[in-house]
Amino acid sequence: MTVRNNEQGTRSLILQAAFEIVCIYGFSGVTLGNLAKHIGMSKSGLFAHFKSIEQLHRELIKHIGSVFRSEVVSPALTVAEGLPRLEATIANWLTWASRPTALGGAPLLAGFFEFDDREGSVRDSLLEEGIRWCTHLRQLVTQAIAMDDFRQDLDAEQFVFELCGIYFSFHVSERFMRDSGSRGFATLAVEELIKRARRR
Amino acid sequence: MTVRNNEQGTRSLILQAAFEIVCIYGFSGVTLGNLAKHIGMSKSGLFAHFKSIEQLHRELIKHIGSVFRSEVVSPALTVAEGLPRLEATIANWLTWASRPTALGGAPLLAGFFEFDDREGSVRDSLLEEGIRWCTHLRQLVTQAIAMDDFRQDLDAEQFVFELCGIYFSFHVSERFMRDSGSRGFATLAVEELIKRARRR
Repeated sequence: MTVRNNEQGTRSLILQAAFEIVCIYGFSGVTLGNLAKHIGMSKSGLFAHFKSIEQLHRELIKHIGSVFRSEVVSPALTVAEGLPRLEATIANWLTWASRPTALGGAPLLAGFFEFDDREGSVRDSLLEEGIRWCTHLRQLVTQAIAMDDFRQDLDAEQFVFELCGIYFSFHVSERFMRDSGSRGFATLAVEELIKRARRR
Repeated sequence: MTVRNNEQGTRSLILQAAFEIVCIYGFSGVTLGNLAKHIGMSKSGLFAHFKSIEQLHRELIKHIGSVFRSEVVSPALTVAEGLPRLEATIANWLTWASRPTALGGAPLLAGFFEFDDREGSVRDSLLEEGIRWCTHLRQLVTQAIAMDDFRQDLDAEQFVFELCGIYFSFHVSERFMRDSGSRGFATLAVEELIKRARRR
């Protein structure tokens, strides 16, 4: 039992270090060498916990996905179904993009660009998280249609495509361009998107 | 003269190889080791042409910027000023996102995510290209307002923020999610954005 707890503790430590590295340097920065240096552990010590760097990347993606759900998805589930819940989710999502450097910068989104033209199990894991998130957003939009908050003929897929665009643009504008107007642009764009979805 | 021509030829060869690598592996994949392997040249041979990997990254960014302008910006300058020119530019831009793997995937955009939380001269060069492109888009929107194609009170910055979002979402949807509906979503979103800009 203690051995298992220690094993779990070390794995968590490694994943946390990997999380900090990926937020700044992307998945290509999460190497055994960088991890070993960051934690002060030998490469062979790391290998005792993860069979390969790909396995570590895949578990890191799952780990980030679960932190994302606990910060963005879950808190909004206490809000009334329909438009209020969708709006709460969007607000949490924009806050996620603004997290401080060490644990910020939407590392999975950055991974989408890192792996768009590469194949393999890391790409597959990223895609799984991406699809899961888009599916969740579509369900929230569909609920808003069912609650009559949005018009009945609204295309939920088109809505999610445009919503993702606003988030991506906010991310680039806020974190890369460091434009102080980013939050205002994003808020206005979301309001406009919702207004168009309500119009009958 | 011949020496200079040879020097120019080798530099072009190196930049072309770097272009091919960055499109798939990002800037972190453009290392001296990878380049040497790709071209069949020694690392010290590469160093004769570029003082540092950062210098190479900066020249690569300028090179991609100039290819981008010749494929996306320039062809649209022959189209009538105002909305027609803006529409032609957007069409060229979306085509740029769909270029085949070896020379595609908007490597500068991927770089925006790679360098959002990192400092230094490579980030500065990327930012310069990003600002140049946003400025160009804003000028096209301002021209469309001046030509009375768009309403006089349109916020050009807000328009460009949303347009960039549509492009980013198209890029992720097309190249990462590989969703066959991407082009349709993007086209509809652009049409809707333009319709809102025209409404009086």
